[in-house]
Amino acid sequence: MIRLGIIGAGRIGKVHCESIGRYVKDAVVACVADPFMNDETEKIVRSFGAQKVCKDYREILDDKTIDAVLICSSTDTHAKISIEAIEAGKHVFCEKPVDHDLAKIEQVKKALEGSKLKYQVGFNRRFDHNFEAVRDAISSGRIGHLDVLKICSRDPGAPSVDYIKVSGGIFLDMTIHDFDMVRFLSGDEVESVYAVGGVTVDKAIGEAGDIDTAIVTMKLKGGTLAVIDNCRRATYGYDQRAEAFGALGQVAISNDCKSSAVISDADGVTAEKPLYFFLERYMQAYVKEISEFVRCIREDMPVPVGIEDGLQAVAIGLAAKKSLATGAPVKL
Amino acid sequence: MIRLGIIGAGRIGKVHCESIGRYVKDAVVACVADPFMNDETEKIVRSFGAQKVCKDYREILDDKTIDAVLICSSTDTHAKISIEAIEAGKHVFCEKPVDHDLAKIEQVKKALEGSKLKYQVGFNRRFDHNFEAVRDAISSGRIGHLDVLKICSRDPGAPSVDYIKVSGGIFLDMTIHDFDMVRFLSGDEVESVYAVGGVTVDKAIGEAGDIDTAIVTMKLKGGTLAVIDNCRRATYGYDQRAEAFGALGQVAISNDCKSSAVISDADGVTAEKPLYFFLERYMQAYVKEISEFVRCIREDMPVPVGIEDGLQAVAIGLAAKKSLATGAPVKL
Amino acid sequence: MIRLGIIGAGRIGKVHCESIGRYVKDAVVACVADPFMNDETEKIVRSFGAQKVCKDYREILDDKTIDAVLICSSTDTHAKISIEAIEAGKHVFCEKPVDHDLAKIEQVKKALEGSKLKYQVGFNRRFDHNFEAVRDAISSGRIGHLDVLKICSRDPGAPSVDYIKVSGGIFLDMTIHDFDMVRFLSGDEVESVYAVGGVTVDKAIGEAGDIDTAIVTMKLKGGTLAVIDNCRRATYGYDQRAEAFGALGQVAISNDCKSSAVISDADGVTAEKPLYFFLERYMQAYVKEISEFVRCIREDMPVPVGIEDGLQAVAIGLAAKKSLATGAPVKL
Amino acid sequence: MIRLGIIGAGRIGKVHCESIGRYVKDAVVACVADPFMNDETEKIVRSFGAQKVCKDYREILDDKTIDAVLICSSTDTHAKISIEAIEAGKHVFCEKPVDHDLAKIEQVKKALEGSKLKYQVGFNRRFDHNFEAVRDAISSGRIGHLDVLKICSRDPGAPSVDYIKVSGGIFLDMTIHDFDMVRFLSGDEVESVYAVGGVTVDKAIGEAGDIDTAIVTMKLKGGTLAVIDNCRRATYGYDQRAEAFGALGQVAISNDCKSSAVISDADGVTAEKPLYFFLERYMQAYVKEISEFVRCIREDMPVPVGIEDGLQAVAIGLAAKKSLATGAPVKL
Repeated sequence: MIRLGIIGAGRIGKVHCESIGRYVKDAVVACVADPFMNDETEKIVRSFGAQKVCKDYREILDDKTIDAVLICSSTDTHAKISIEAIEAGKHVFCEKPVDHDLAKIEQVKKALEGSKLKYQVGFNRRFDHNFEAVRDAISSGRIGHLDVLKICSRDPGAPSVDYIKVSGGIFLDMTIHDFDMVRFLSGDEVESVYAVGGVTVDKAIGEAGDIDTAIVTMKLKGGTLAVIDNCRRATYGYDQRAEAFGALGQVAISNDCKSSAVISDADGVTAEKPLYFFLERYMQAYVKEISEFVRCIREDMPVPVGIEDGLQAVAIGLAAKKSLATGAPVKL
Repeated sequence: MIRLGIIGAGRIGKVHCESIGRYVKDAVVACVADPFMNDETEKIVRSFGAQKVCKDYREILDDKTIDAVLICSSTDTHAKISIEAIEAGKHVFCEKPVDHDLAKIEQVKKALEGSKLKYQVGFNRRFDHNFEAVRDAISSGRIGHLDVLKICSRDPGAPSVDYIKVSGGIFLDMTIHDFDMVRFLSGDEVESVYAVGGVTVDKAIGEAGDIDTAIVTMKLKGGTLAVIDNCRRATYGYDQRAEAFGALGQVAISNDCKSSAVISDADGVTAEKPLYFFLERYMQAYVKEISEFVRCIREDMPVPVGIEDGLQAVAIGLAAKKSLATGAPVKL
Repeated sequence: MIRLGIIGAGRIGKVHCESIGRYVKDAVVACVADPFMNDETEKIVRSFGAQKVCKDYREILDDKTIDAVLICSSTDTHAKISIEAIEAGKHVFCEKPVDHDLAKIEQVKKALEGSKLKYQVGFNRRFDHNFEAVRDAISSGRIGHLDVLKICSRDPGAPSVDYIKVSGGIFLDMTIHDFDMVRFLSGDEVESVYAVGGVTVDKAIGEAGDIDTAIVTMKLKGGTLAVIDNCRRATYGYDQRAEAFGALGQVAISNDCKSSAVISDADGVTAEKPLYFFLERYMQAYVKEISEFVRCIREDMPVPVGIEDGLQAVAIGLAAKKSLATGAPVKL
Repeated sequence: MIRLGIIGAGRIGKVHCESIGRYVKDAVVACVADPFMNDETEKIVRSFGAQKVCKDYREILDDKTIDAVLICSSTDTHAKISIEAIEAGKHVFCEKPVDHDLAKIEQVKKALEGSKLKYQVGFNRRFDHNFEAVRDAISSGRIGHLDVLKICSRDPGAPSVDYIKVSGGIFLDMTIHDFDMVRFLSGDEVESVYAVGGVTVDKAIGEAGDIDTAIVTMKLKGGTLAVIDNCRRATYGYDQRAEAFGALGQVAISNDCKSSAVISDADGVTAEKPLYFFLERYMQAYVKEISEFVRCIREDMPVPVGIEDGLQAVAIGLAAKKSLATGAPVKL
């Protein structure tokens, strides 16, 4: 039985706590730490099977019975806690992004050098059934050499401007998942990035120095062209699609819905909207990523999403940011 | 150049006139006859290329330059005019149904015996791209032995009760197309029929002695089970679908729409309604059936839908009518 | 915490054991009984969290700490064990069908009279997201008066002939789910049934006195026409669809797949096959039906699928059997 | 009756000749000119109703009975013949692109100044039912402010390298349709263009100085972001899709197929491939564009696609070419 400590009991911390308690075999949540831990949060996480709570995450790091930690705190603490956890001998699962600063991610990477500890980054979409099907179609050779990769990723609604301000900007906060998908699906690395964007959802986002709508074009080292389009708001819900086009054909994935029901009436032929947002859409992926993390610890296998993946996605995001600022393509 | 006379300038007569004038090679509408021929109708049919109009269809039968007639008059005149046309040496294209009375159809059949004249019945759906694809999947062996054949056929709205009264009832007026489809798609003959039905669209239809909603189950001689469901009203338009299920798989066809546009918004993911009704849906099939008729005359080939097909569909319709009346299955 | 005993550790018994252990809150599998209990089975059910195993189900009935039993033994034992369990004061969840004999189901019904015990029947499809969407569209009035209800239910492959022989025939074994769906979706009762069928999958099924392909037409009391088509074999997998057509429109559900991936290549545009069979397709429904059963016990609420539902579905199945044998429609 | 002369009897010249002969009301093909006119070509165009043929297009320009010409000759002759035709007082329908050189298009524009002659450019996709549906959804306000416009356009196979060499390159030959679509659908003008591309289909295309796969990103003046992806080869046929995403929702169009047939079997659930190429896909659009041209002449209305549209599309294409060459975005 792998004993896990969860650091940070916000939304994503609770998601992991619940999914571990319910669906992850061979693992138990030994402790949940949060500086704002209170009775309500304690009640929730205990109902999911957490054995203990605390305010200071160092209690988790000091607990010799705990094998691994899930870092679900705010992004600016990820690198620091990662290094402390590694030094405390804990395996680490760190939510994305590892940091907004490549130098700090390099420090984590350095801390891991020579260590046998597992370090997995929370790119949950790699564990999604649809994206896995695209990956399989590409890696199996089913569609031949990958010529064009297209990813469409839109949120149902924008987060608060307060969140936007500390988010690192759309490319490090939202597109980072898509950058990771470009790498995961193609099995290739990005060579250059060109980004255009605008503010069409909410002027306040622009005033906070960010954009809410973007198209990012990339050239990959193996000759693939890739393009991502993002928007912080889609009236019909969470839009998560991809198309991979190659020498032998194309594979495309569409959105998941609550049911397959289609109603035909005087207004048209209407299917359901996509599942609302990431919790609804990727719940099974959250379970699967932690299950894999636990399995890698138990069976001493390499993790499926490592520190290098965490670093590369941020590097592409920073390049996109620079491209947007300069109006020119940026080489990596 | 095949010279055609059109007998009856109602809706379907005009459809044929237009499609011949525009799209049918090697044929010309030499004359259109209608007892109610007036200036307006004349103007319309002449704009489609008709060379002449008259009130009495016998002028067409007497015209030695005319090769063939299209009988588009009311159903009760089909058999009589068919026989007169055959006696006048004209090839005949007769709208469905040939008659409501099997004996009269037999008389037409008899008139044709020993003749080299072509006699085609207006089952236009046989010439539709979707139904042809089902037929091909079955006849090519693609889905293996045909186990179950399902046809769904719904009109956007019910005709007038005055029409209902002379229509011969839903099975001879509406389902007759589907009975022909069962024969065409399966390449088999119906052995027994069981019909259930009700009045859910308009009470006046019930008061006129008819039903507006029906399910007809059939056993075919080769072991296939078939089922048709009909309704005189679908709020979303003309519903024309079929599924054929066999030992190796299934082929299914869905409705055609004006465009493939799908709108996603807060209300759902909405495609267009089906094309409204038979004129929109089957215009190309009307062109194709007459083109084939003309080709069969020119090249002296057997017609694709003959008098026997006209007779069998009516026979099944009458059996369905009897089944509904008696509440018991009826053998053919 | 509700303590459950599972009687019968075959395929479906194990399914319930696993889903309770993993996903059902507030319940625990206290004991699993099976006359053929062995080390291997014990290991499996214990890995799902079962606390105890035994060979004789009476140990479960005698255990005062156990609140409820799940009867997952062979059909011929359902009624007997149901009655014994009721007499022992246990709530009962009984797999479908309760029995092949209406008289025996009546005995269970009688045993329940005046009791406050819950008795739920295992019609799992009532808890499926797609069928629930159809039910909602009908019961909410979204599609208006229900005129036509169509259910298509095909298995990926036929069971063994040994199983067929004790199955009660296709109508009591397979179609029974669809009969229940007709009742559940329509909220109405069946008035008359007409069944046609044949043997197209495997001659041995015919030699065992059963059929493998069927179409059943029904009239419901409220004027709805319903039709079910079944086959024991579909090369493309488990086919589970329904269409409900009403005065205001239609709702249709299609199959669920492993992913939404569509591959376009020289062979066509190809989506995935449906999920293979009931375990893959209805796993969430199995979890939900037991969760509801447990909730009804805890909160003393009426069960969502009661003994009357179990009885009616068998009654329709027997009527279909009689219709097939006599070739005539049968009134209920 | 509008009398038309067709200059150039290659593939597209024949397409127009056939569609006018069959489907375009109030117009007749008075003459077809082609320097390589021979018996075979004459036979074909006469079968479509052409009244005369000649080798020298100046015969058409000199014929006072001819109202308008369709310029279907090679691109390098378009501007010259356009100007001569205008000087001869003929209305002009000119195939795309008007020229590869903006200066020459400006000369045509100048020749038209002060003239009442109609000059229409052959951007046939503007007359396609699917693209019209996208346009309607945008211009009606149905999807709100247009934030992102995506066009996917892939040919089934690459043309010969000889053709590639004189084609002006992918952006002026193939993408030019998509550039026009960006303008048509958005109702907006392009502000800047960034193009990436590669050679993945055929090395010989690269050796000829062209690319075969491209992604072009654009910023429009009204704040819309647009992206086009092209490839000269798709194994599944002609891929012609678009998505427009706005503040209120999205409209998307997919490919048209020969039939709606879907076959489910052990290999999956397979729909037909898209219609093979532009002749199959856009035949109705060809008819409609010429019908509109004829109508504009008859009713003295402004043409739906004028010389300015012809010029702008080429301007964007040249900008894309420059962007590809320089690796930097280009302002218009």
